[in-house]
Parts: sequence; structure tokens; C-alpha cells
Amino acid sequence: MIDAPYLLFLGDAPDPLAAKVAQGIRDWRPDMAIGQLRLDGCRADMHLPDMDIPAAVDAGAKTLVIGVANRGGVISQAWKAVLIEALEAGMDIASGLHNLLRDEPDLVAAADKAGRTLHDVRVPTVKYPIADGKRRTGKRCLAVGTDCSVGKMYTALAMEREMHARGMKATFRATGQTGILITGGGVPLDAVIADFMAGSVEWLTPDNDPDHWDLIEGQGSLFHASYSGVTMALIHGGQADALILCHEPTRTHMRGLPDYDLPTLEDLRDTALHLARRVNPDVAVVGISVNTAALSEDAATVLLAEIEERMGLPTVDPFRQGAVRLVDALT
Amino acid sequence: MIDAPYLLFLGDAPDPLAAKVAQGIRDWRPDMAIGQLRLDGCRADMHLPDMDIPAAVDAGAKTLVIGVANRGGVISQAWKAVLIEALEAGMDIASGLHNLLRDEPDLVAAADKAGRTLHDVRVPTVKYPIADGKRRTGKRCLAVGTDCSVGKMYTALAMEREMHARGMKATFRATGQTGILITGGGVPLDAVIADFMAGSVEWLTPDNDPDHWDLIEGQGSLFHASYSGVTMALIHGGQADALILCHEPTRTHMRGLPDYDLPTLEDLRDTALHLARRVNPDVAVVGISVNTAALSEDAATVLLAEIEERMGLPTVDPFRQGAVRLVDALT
Repeated sequence: MIDAPYLLFLGDAPDPLAAKVAQGIRDWRPDMAIGQLRLDGCRADMHLPDMDIPAAVDAGAKTLVIGVANRGGVISQAWKAVLIEALEAGMDIASGLHNLLRDEPDLVAAADKAGRTLHDVRVPTVKYPIADGKRRTGKRCLAVGTDCSVGKMYTALAMEREMHARGMKATFRATGQTGILITGGGVPLDAVIADFMAGSVEWLTPDNDPDHWDLIEGQGSLFHASYSGVTMALIHGGQADALILCHEPTRTHMRGLPDYDLPTLEDLRDTALHLARRVNPDVAVVGISVNTAALSEDAATVLLAEIEERMGLPTVDPFRQGAVRLVDALT
Repeated sequence: MIDAPYLLFLGDAPDPLAAKVAQGIRDWRPDMAIGQLRLDGCRADMHLPDMDIPAAVDAGAKTLVIGVANRGGVISQAWKAVLIEALEAGMDIASGLHNLLRDEPDLVAAADKAGRTLHDVRVPTVKYPIADGKRRTGKRCLAVGTDCSVGKMYTALAMEREMHARGMKATFRATGQTGILITGGGVPLDAVIADFMAGSVEWLTPDNDPDHWDLIEGQGSLFHASYSGVTMALIHGGQADALILCHEPTRTHMRGLPDYDLPTLEDLRDTALHLARRVNPDVAVVGISVNTAALSEDAATVLLAEIEERMGLPTVDPFRQGAVRLVDALT
């Protein structure tokens, strides 16, 4: 759907978290990213060759992928100059931003003139059904978090990689723009109309072989005042057999909500399990995924052991250690 | 916004619940409804004069309000003939259906030709913010249900009526098409984009006088596999000080989900309270509203007393008894 390879546009990312789209592509489909383009003030770095548009075209880039969340919901003039240059140089543009490429007349005009395509992967292109809650064949695993942006997508992708290495049947199911840009398909859940959220998740994870696992990308958090409804729809639409708890231990408050503490892992376990049993009485919490990127190796090891002891569940950082023990916990 | 009085169109409603839009207008704004129009097979009755289009126009009807949920999500040809006749006779049409009037070329053409207006109240007309979870001034009461269509809107409207009778500051806040058609404003929550659901509820219930109560119309149920995400957004966006539990005691399974039992009132109380505390630690469950329409007076009295004894909370059917005790419980 989107032509590879990509030039990852990092813009003026204020911090690495703002560039999580680019980071996801870099980590999970490194072959698809041949360079990065950063503007003044950019505080993200994918450790790819820095390229301007002519260099990227010379290197064979087919699509400029906007790998960063924009500030204030507006595509700035500083961005526009680069994006129009890319179109004029023969590249497509792919974006998961809320403010759509197609709503920017100058980008549309430049794309039309150059015969290039603007991909807005955030916009649903399917008419989703209303959820019916019926039990489906096959197995499903859902990552749920104490907060947004704690590693739910990474966890699911790492489990898929490990399962494929073992020859297991497994499919990562993207529910956000990064996952969709990485895999070329999925549901842009936060852009779905409220009534169809759970139905879109059912649509994304249909009947399958009894030994096939869907690894469903989580979104938001049941404890996040802005996005909890999206998470709720994933829990009921996803019909998980296995839940993985995801956590970032250095977060001092909920992302974007300075007045809100993080919930405990115990609270997440009990709340998510209670709600998930509604659609699948056999669901179990099978493991914990902790994003220890902000900790030293030693501190991470200590923390993971502490959490494992306290919670009585396999506890790993899949980025540091792989997802072997989480996959073991499924079987 | 919508010109009154109304002719309530009941179409071929398969059962009284399907006509809950009409019933709500009939019960809460009876002065605005001067007649009903029923097609063959209609199983709903508002006990208003039956009128065809010429009779309704003679009686002064300005707007035909579609008071029934249509079957299969399609506006049938049988409906079309009546709707076009209404437009040609000089009436506007107002609808809360998912399939929009504006998406039907023959209706649009007839409205254009006659110079009439098609009101699709289901479509959001506001660019809602993302929720910020900040504490707001004023008080809020939210109705939550064991299921969909158990009387949440009625409960909030009955409480508003009682509070106004006492001279209290209170505003019913509509979150569904019926409530919007009744009050002329609100948020069509089930049609809002996922990311903005909780924000739209914050927008609907802004800072207010310390002694002002918003009576927020509930939607769906935390236990309904299709719509729980919408309910979750109401709980976090609504920031309730008081929760009212709503229940319909003769329901044998969740509405539209034959495989799903209803949760207990205890489960609803504990689950909703736990989630609501996230945004307002002082929230309390203050009362229970039971829709006893399907029970005799005696059976209702016995059941309400049983639930009140079991749950230790004021328990009433506001339709039969008014909302006096629920309002008492707020103060």
C-alpha cells in the first residue's frame, strides 16, 4: 500500500517520545527506513543517516513518512517547505497525524502536480460493524498499560517476532498509526466513531485457526482520563485469552495529565481482568512487560525481579530481553 | 434550532423500545408533540392523535421528527414516501438516525425543492477538545446502567424536573439523539471520534456555580460488549460527584447480545465507582433507579423494597414515583 523504502521525517520533535512513529519503524522494519530528516531543534534521533530530500531521492526513498507528532495539531510552514520539496522530487508522503495531509490545500496541489500520493493512515477506510460480542475461534493476546506510551506496541511486536521464530502462527494487529505504518494494515482506533470502536476490534481479529494468536496492539489506558474509552473498547472487542500488563516505572504522572498519578500494577491487573472476563471468562493475566529504557541494566534487573516477586508473574523488558518468557507464558 | 411543534413519525417500529426517541419527547416535552404517524405493522403508540401529513400540516406541525430506530440501518422506501410528502407539504425533518437524511439524494432533492431543512442531530457539529481531566467547579450527577435502554435518560430528566420544582440550579445534559431532540442541544456521543469522547463530555459539562448540578444522560453500559467504551468516556469525562445506578429487572440478557447475562447491581456499583474515583475521589453512589414498567404496582413495590434493603441505597422508579428521593440523596 505504501511504497518503501522510507525517509523518516522527524521534524522538530520536542522529545524522543514525540517520534515514536519513526522509532517503531526503525526498530521493527529497519530495512524499510533508509534515512532520517531532522529540522532545527529536533530532539529525536533514529541513528539513521541524516538526509535532505535530494540525498534521500538519490538513495532510493519512495515515501517520506512523517515519524513525529506535530505540535498544536497544525502542520507548520517549516514542515510544509520540506513536504512540498519531497513531493516535487517524486516521493509520496505517509502520515498518521490527526490533521490530515488531504486537508492542506498546498500539499494537495503539490501532490496533484507531481502525480504523487498522500497517505493519511489515521483515517478509517472501512465501514466497521457494531460489535456482537460472539466468541471467536483462535487465540488473542492484548497488551494493557498503566498509562499511554509505556510499550504496549513494542510488547506485541516483540511477542510476534518471538512466536514467528518458534514457527508459531501469530499476527500483530495494529490499532494505531505507527503499527499501521509498520505493517501496512490495521484499525486507526482513536479515529473510529464511538459506536463502532469495539466492532472495529472484532473486525480486526476475526475467527482464526485454533492455534493462531493475534497480538493486539493496546491503546491508552483504563486509567487515563482522556483515552480510557478507547482502551475499554479494546478489552471488550479484543476478547483476549491473555492479557499482558505494560508499565513504565519512572513516569511521575499520567502522560499529558500532570494531576494524575499512575495506578499500581495490582489495580491494573484486577480492573482489566474483571472487565475482560465479561467477554471471555477464561482470560488470564499472564505476564508483565516493563519499559526500563530509563534505567541502568543493574537497576532494571533489580526492578524486574522485585515486580516478578510481588506480582507472581513473568516480568521482562522485551526490548532488553526479548519476549521469550512472555511467549512461554501463553503456552 | 428545530421548529416546533412536531409530528412524531413512528414508522414500522417493531416494539415500543425502538420508538424511545418519540417516547422521550412525548414524556418530557408533551407540548411539542401534536400528533403521531404510524405505518402498517407499527407496534409503538404514543397515545397522540394519529395524523397523516395533510392532517399534521393542518394542525400546525412544523417538523416531522423521526421517533423510531430504523431496521437494518437503511431508510426504507416505505418511509421515503412519507418523508418526501412531509417536505413537499412544507415541514422540516429532524432525525437522530445513523444513516443520515443528508446522505439520501431523494430527500435532499425534495428538501431543496421545497426549501425545507433536514436536521441530522446525530452528527457532531462541534470540534471537541481532548479531555484534560482537570477538576471543574459545580456538581455533576451521572446515570450508569446494568444495560443499554434501562432508563438512564428518564432518570436524569426526572431528577432535573424535581430539582427545578425545588428551585435548584440543574441542567439536563443530553448525550444522545433523543435527549438532543428533546432539549435542542447536547453531544451525540456515540457519533464522536474515539479520541474526543471524554473531551466532548467535559465540554458539555463545564465549570459552573458551586450549587449547580449537571444531570448527565448516561449511554450504554460498562458491561455491554458493543458500547462500553462510550460509557467509560462518560465516567471519566463526566467527573461525577454522584452516580445513580439504573436497572431494568425483567431483562433476560444484555440488549442485542443474547449470550450475555446482565451484571448485578453490586458489580455495577463497585466497577463504576472504582473507575469514577479516578477523576473525582469524592464520588459516591447515591441511589438506584429501577425501570419497573413491566411489573405490576405491587410487584414493583416489593422489588424496590428488596433492592433498597439489599443495597442500602434509596431505590425508586422515577417514572412511577418521581425522583424526590434521588434528589434528596444528592443533598
